[in-house]
Amino acid sequence: MFEAVISDTKAWRNSIEAIAALIDEGTLQIETDGLKLRAMDPSQIALVDFELPASAFDKYTVEKPVSVGIDFSELSKITKRSRTEDKIELSLEENRLKMVFAGETTRKFNLAIIESTSSPPKEPGVDFTSEIKIGASILKEALKDAELISNHVAIMADDGFSITAQGDTGSAEIKFPSENIMSLTAKEKSRSVFALDQLNNLLKASDQGSIILLKLKTDAPLRLEYAIGDGRVIYYLAPRIEST
Amino acid sequence: MFEAVISDTKAWRNSIEAIAALIDEGTLQIETDGLKLRAMDPSQIALVDFELPASAFDKYTVEKPVSVGIDFSELSKITKRSRTEDKIELSLEENRLKMVFAGETTRKFNLAIIESTSSPPKEPGVDFTSEIKIGASILKEALKDAELISNHVAIMADDGFSITAQGDTGSAEIKFPSENIMSLTAKEKSRSVFALDQLNNLLKASDQGSIILLKLKTDAPLRLEYAIGDGRVIYYLAPRIEST
Amino acid sequence: MFEAVISDTKAWRNSIEAIAALIDEGTLQIETDGLKLRAMDPSQIALVDFELPASAFDKYTVEKPVSVGIDFSELSKITKRSRTEDKIELSLEENRLKMVFAGETTRKFNLAIIESTSSPPKEPGVDFTSEIKIGASILKEALKDAELISNHVAIMADDGFSITAQGDTGSAEIKFPSENIMSLTAKEKSRSVFALDQLNNLLKASDQGSIILLKLKTDAPLRLEYAIGDGRVIYYLAPRIEST
Repeated sequence: MFEAVISDTKAWRNSIEAIAALIDEGTLQIETDGLKLRAMDPSQIALVDFELPASAFDKYTVEKPVSVGIDFSELSKITKRSRTEDKIELSLEENRLKMVFAGETTRKFNLAIIESTSSPPKEPGVDFTSEIKIGASILKEALKDAELISNHVAIMADDGFSITAQGDTGSAEIKFPSENIMSLTAKEKSRSVFALDQLNNLLKASDQGSIILLKLKTDAPLRLEYAIGDGRVIYYLAPRIEST
Repeated sequence: MFEAVISDTKAWRNSIEAIAALIDEGTLQIETDGLKLRAMDPSQIALVDFELPASAFDKYTVEKPVSVGIDFSELSKITKRSRTEDKIELSLEENRLKMVFAGETTRKFNLAIIESTSSPPKEPGVDFTSEIKIGASILKEALKDAELISNHVAIMADDGFSITAQGDTGSAEIKFPSENIMSLTAKEKSRSVFALDQLNNLLKASDQGSIILLKLKTDAPLRLEYAIGDGRVIYYLAPRIEST
Repeated sequence: MFEAVISDTKAWRNSIEAIAALIDEGTLQIETDGLKLRAMDPSQIALVDFELPASAFDKYTVEKPVSVGIDFSELSKITKRSRTEDKIELSLEENRLKMVFAGETTRKFNLAIIESTSSPPKEPGVDFTSEIKIGASILKEALKDAELISNHVAIMADDGFSITAQGDTGSAEIKFPSENIMSLTAKEKSRSVFALDQLNNLLKASDQGSIILLKLKTDAPLRLEYAIGDGRVIYYLAPRIEST
């Protein structure tokens, strides 16, 4: 038995978006203390580790922890139809995830539970050498700048933080002035190259006001984390091995 | 001889849109008391019955009633270019419908009259069992919800009014609370299934503030009516025969 | 050595747009008194003659005039990423055009200089018979009206100014009332037919408030000019020979 009610529809929409940005199908773990999901994207390049605690919900009842296979691309479409003023009621009934959007009209959606045998991957153990806190919107703008030049970018932290792109016809370098960086610590220079479309995916569920925590190590996976309402998402993204 | 002037450009735009939503070519009847058109869509699934009375016009002169074949998809493109502040002058000249949009600039458009031999179809005689009045915007939103699940919906009236959709991966049910329904009378439970894209077409020329009158009977055509300025449009839409 | 700084980013964006609207690659002449470019479009139907004087820049230093081959379609993409509050610093370094957008973040772009051997074409000598000054937005709207009917239009000046289009299914005539024309002089009636998409290209870099100067002669190229910040662009567009 699982029953939950959430009023922060925006947090719920962003939660589903944070997962759907990376995977189509996945296993949601409904635990007594909240919802969890950890999965690799189909290309095995990125990992999402998502958590929305029971405290995010107005009501949250789980008799026995259960894992349910979800088509997140379908769920995301449905979730996007919720409105800010709706209360969302979630429950499991037989083979279906039942959602009621109670607002001006009452809208019931049922989504079939799918088979899902995958067990959650391990979190990669990386000894990161630098850590940056920066606003989501300023980071997204920088990626748009870099997009003009190439489809991958180098992210670099040292005494400053910068993003560079190298293309056939030109190059771009975006330097963030220190007043735009919330915090930066670097034990040593860290620099890795990532695919731009993947980076954009990781930021999809962030808001204008989201604060992004980045952890870097040269030629190691990037760790990117931000809060979604009372929950949070952590992504790991493998670097591209390149001479760039 | 036909000459008419209309200042309510929005009503005129919506009138042409109401017809063009269903048919590409059709016969407009220019009568002494107003403009009329009744036609089936090419797939023979829907019927439009349109009327814009002489009173909707600033000036309206018809010497002798005449039927003119119109390419409504072309006329719709031209009409969309009119602006709220324009006065629209209509006249027939030889083989052309002449339109003058008099505003900041004076724009004359001529549209060739096309051959059209079709005679208007009869209005279907259905003994409807329920009748609902509801706002256009709330109805359109419900259809958008249903669209996520299937490309056809069941419309149902009883002691309440609801729209449901059944798909491979899930289902949706939208219930309209009584305070959002302007009126509802049902002699018996009525339920029919319709194609979503067709329903959307029927609502194309409605405004945010339009009030939609629906008449239903189980497995019978739907009758959908709303006002367009001083005129009105009535649509009939055949049900899909289904076990849904 | 070339170094320049411009604060009017809108003028700079529109300047690059004015050129990119017609040509992909071209030779920018960096002279001591400003930037210049004259080139034919690849179809040889239109000519662009562009000039941005040194006075448009906060700082402008040229040691020796130089011609540089530019991929304007790439440059246009980069330039569009500049923001109103940015200062744009331009310089030539080895084989690259270096651009720094200094604003909230500092963004450096390098664009490879391309080979370019073409010498600037001569300005066509036409003895124009009429001259019209008109607002850009009213002219653009008229072209949108005409677009419904055909993909080419006749532009005509006499004691009035009008644009007409003739299609298979209809026709359009847009007359500009004298209060909407800033000035009109016509030695004799002038009328030529032009491709609509080309006309739209010529107006791409104009703003709502731009004032367009048109010069016409029957079956001769059109001359179309407007200011871009402190600079200006002049286009010549060859007429279509047609019986329309």
